[in-house]
Order: sequence, then C-alpha cells, then structure tokens
Amino acid sequence: MNIESYIRVTPDFPKPGIIFRDFTPLLANGPAFGALIDQLKARYAENSIDVVVGVEARGFVLASALAYALGAGTVLVRKEGKLPHETHAQEYELEYGSSVLEISKDAFTEGQRILVVDDVLATGGTIGATLKLIQQNFSVSIEELLFLIELDDLSGREKLPDLPIHSVFHY
Amino acid sequence: MNIESYIRVTPDFPKPGIIFRDFTPLLANGPAFGALIDQLKARYAENSIDVVVGVEARGFVLASALAYALGAGTVLVRKEGKLPHETHAQEYELEYGSSVLEISKDAFTEGQRILVVDDVLATGGTIGATLKLIQQNFSVSIEELLFLIELDDLSGREKLPDLPIHSVFHY
Repeated sequence: MNIESYIRVTPDFPKPGIIFRDFTPLLANGPAFGALIDQLKARYAENSIDVVVGVEARGFVLASALAYALGAGTVLVRKEGKLPHETHAQEYELEYGSSVLEISKDAFTEGQRILVVDDVLATGGTIGATLKLIQQNFSVSIEELLFLIELDDLSGREKLPDLPIHSVFHY
Repeated sequence: MNIESYIRVTPDFPKPGIIFRDFTPLLANGPAFGALIDQLKARYAENSIDVVVGVEARGFVLASALAYALGAGTVLVRKEGKLPHETHAQEYELEYGSSVLEISKDAFTEGQRILVVDDVLATGGTIGATLKLIQQNFSVSIEELLFLIELDDLSGREKLPDLPIHSVFHY
C-alpha cells in the first residue's frame, strides 16, 4: 500500500506561498492509517518503549495510536494552561512573538524509555522546546524523535540536540 | 486491572469550585491505557466501524488509538482555522461568548459507519455542535457517541439527538 499517496498537497495554506502537506486523508483511511502505525510499531518493536509523547495537537493522533500499538502509555505536551495538575513550562519563539508549552510534573518515572512524536519537523522550534521540557526536568531515555513529515529545506534537525530522528516522509 | 484508579481528582481546576477528573495518569500508564482501548475495541468489534471522529484536542487521543484498534480511520473535528482544505463550520455557545468547530468537506464517504468520541460529556455544547456538523453535511451512520467521562449532574445527554451514548465512567 502506498500510504504517501494519501497525503494531499494543499497550496497557500496557512498563508500564500506555503505548500501544506495535509495528511488528514491518510488518517481518515482505515487501511492507510493502520499500515502507517503498523510500520512504526515494527520499527520500535525492540525498544521497550514505556511512553510515547505527543505534542499538541496533531502530534496526539500519531502518539496515541502508536502508544497503544506498542503497549505503551502516552503523555501530552500542551499549550499553556491546558494541563491540570502541576506542570513544567518552556517558552519558545514563534515567527511573531512567543508561546509556552507545558508538561505534567509527574509525566514520567525515572529511567523510562520514551519516543517524542510530532506531525511535522519544520524549523524545529516546537520540538526543541519539548526536548528542553523533558531533558531539563526528567531522567528518561529519549529513544528517538519521530515525525510524520520533515521539511528538509528548513533544516530543523540541525537545531536539535544530538538524538536519533526518524521522519516517515521528507519534502 | 482497575483503570478508574488512574483517574486523578484535581480540585479547583480550571477554576475554584470545579472538581476536575484528570485522566492524564491513565493515558500515561501503558497497561491501563491498553486495557481501556482493548475494552472499547471489544465493545465495537461487531460494528464494522469505518471512522472514529475525535473532537479537539483530548478527543484525538482516544479516537486515534481506538481507530487503530478497530482497523478504522480517524477524522479530526477542530477549532476554527486549524484544518487545511475546505471545511464545514458550526458555531456553538460557550459559557461566555461562542466558538466555531470545523470538519473537512471530504471527511466521510456516503454510508460510512462512524463513532464520535470526546473525552468528557459535560453540558453537551461541543458534542452537540459536532453532531450538527456531521448530520447536516454527511450521509453516515453514527453508531454511538463515546465519552471517557460523563458528568451526570450536568445532564448533557438530554440536549443531544436520539443516538446511543456510552460513557466509560460516570461522576
């Protein structure tokens, strides 16, 4: 099955000149979505993953299904004010202004093996802030950073810490 | 396994006087999360579900894992402006003001059998708008509305159309 054929090219979204790779048709198709998650399950079958971290909001979709496939739990990294309970927070820069991501203070137990998942690796700002949140506050093993799509021209991976990175599709 | 024991009671969130049922510890625990999704998979094993609809943003987590478990796809109902491609939109009332939900115009094909999933059934405003979006724009069979938590005192289900409703936990 060619799961890439389910990614739709949407020009001029979210603004003119940007070509958006829309994977909602891939999610919506049961066989294609199943094939994607099965492929990722096979990739991490030997990693004994405890927790798959998803970054708000599209990251939740991949993280949750993959967590279930691996017998792992899932932890949500959310925008400011969305998580109940005590959180760690990390500010990061956007194109205009800044934003804050949070994670629960009891997200992990020491030594857990985790994956960190987001839908797209673009400039790396969001995932960079997520990694700071995790590495500065927890003693866990980040086995890999996983993206559905990586936009190679933006060189986001060059700004990230030295960790394994896997992107299913490159554009 | 008593999966309910992983739901944490958080008083005074998001504001004083509200008792928040925080299920993030349930999501984060692999065996508990797996047991929850396995239980729901068994419930719908005979329904031939094509698509599990998740409502932004916590609804995505349950919808996605359950979709994978059932061999179904997942469709996202999102806040205004978040979906690429053409959408249908539905305004709904909040405690103060209003908000808009959207769904892609090509979310479903005719006759598909779907589940609609959100984390909590409270006053029913969000799920009511989601159902309008689906029922006014698509010819699909809504097999059931699924919630992880239902707050019985708020009587949300009384304001919803006549559809089967299943809530895993009642408070």
